[in-house]
Amino acid sequence: MSTNLFKVDTFMPRGDREQKLKQRGRVIWMTGLSGSGKTTLAHALERALFNSGHIVYVLDGDNIRHGLNKGLGFSEQDRLENIRRIAEVSKLMVDAGLITINCFVSPTEALRTLARTIIGAEDFLEVHVHCPLDVCEARDVKGLYAKARRGEIPDFTGISSPYEAPQSAFVTVDTSKYDIAFCLKQLLNAIEPRITL
Amino acid sequence: MSTNLFKVDTFMPRGDREQKLKQRGRVIWMTGLSGSGKTTLAHALERALFNSGHIVYVLDGDNIRHGLNKGLGFSEQDRLENIRRIAEVSKLMVDAGLITINCFVSPTEALRTLARTIIGAEDFLEVHVHCPLDVCEARDVKGLYAKARRGEIPDFTGISSPYEAPQSAFVTVDTSKYDIAFCLKQLLNAIEPRITL
Repeated sequence: MSTNLFKVDTFMPRGDREQKLKQRGRVIWMTGLSGSGKTTLAHALERALFNSGHIVYVLDGDNIRHGLNKGLGFSEQDRLENIRRIAEVSKLMVDAGLITINCFVSPTEALRTLARTIIGAEDFLEVHVHCPLDVCEARDVKGLYAKARRGEIPDFTGISSPYEAPQSAFVTVDTSKYDIAFCLKQLLNAIEPRITL
Repeated sequence: MSTNLFKVDTFMPRGDREQKLKQRGRVIWMTGLSGSGKTTLAHALERALFNSGHIVYVLDGDNIRHGLNKGLGFSEQDRLENIRRIAEVSKLMVDAGLITINCFVSPTEALRTLARTIIGAEDFLEVHVHCPLDVCEARDVKGLYAKARRGEIPDFTGISSPYEAPQSAFVTVDTSKYDIAFCLKQLLNAIEPRITL
């Protein structure tokens, strides 16, 4: 048996995978009110990046809350743990060479600072999907604002719980003033230099 | 503003990413005693698969226990939660199109069944890295067996806690009888048809 059977090499560095994927791993972190357009923009961005040759993966409530974060509620502690785990998963994916698009309301600076700290500032591209509350509420795609106004959802961001807008987002798009095509172009212009090797 | 701003499309399917990556997403789950050679084989396998064009990522204690699963201990409940989260992360990575190599002792059928159930049997390739306890203990690469014998590590698999060998592993390699090159060849022969589109 070879004597170096248990020689401990390091695993392959991130850079090797990035070279092969021809992209830099990054987290595009979309924050904004419910109904601001995070998911719609994420779809559009995912498709655009994929079509330009990238490997992109969307993390959102659908694939996180029913799986990894099943059992977490909406207490302050659980919200922190929710974001902490999402950030840790994103960090692993970035290390794997992927670009993730994360769609989470993530309403406070504390939550986003936690994510930024775990992921690393260099890899954390904060996108503020801005849209005034009254516009989001008028849209009310999922009927959540109506429910929140009736008091059926406690601590609903914008209604019974604050949304703290990012102070220095990597890029801000305003879906109340501009259509998706325009917002997407803004995003791509900002992001492309950061994902290019 | 476009009226279909909030039309909910589905995100891109896994198959699109797999086509681009020219591989099937899978989890190669390596189970075995401490010192059986999981990490060494994982290094070799990662390098071999990368060299044949694949995008592979290793999940092990180093990148999981200090990050996502920080704070979990070794009680039965925490061990289950540890494996549950690892399985959920692996599932997301497979959905992203990646091949993951997971190195975790995962000593019981219950733990591995949990992982298989979450990941899905089709994507879960269980590798038993077999090596008799006395050989692992003689190697004692990390000095853990000595510590466990001195009673300094409670519930140490093989010493004070059982290891249940898999009953129907996808592939079994025996690192006490064969060298790494041979074990690697066995692994590649078994795995390659399952990661090829």
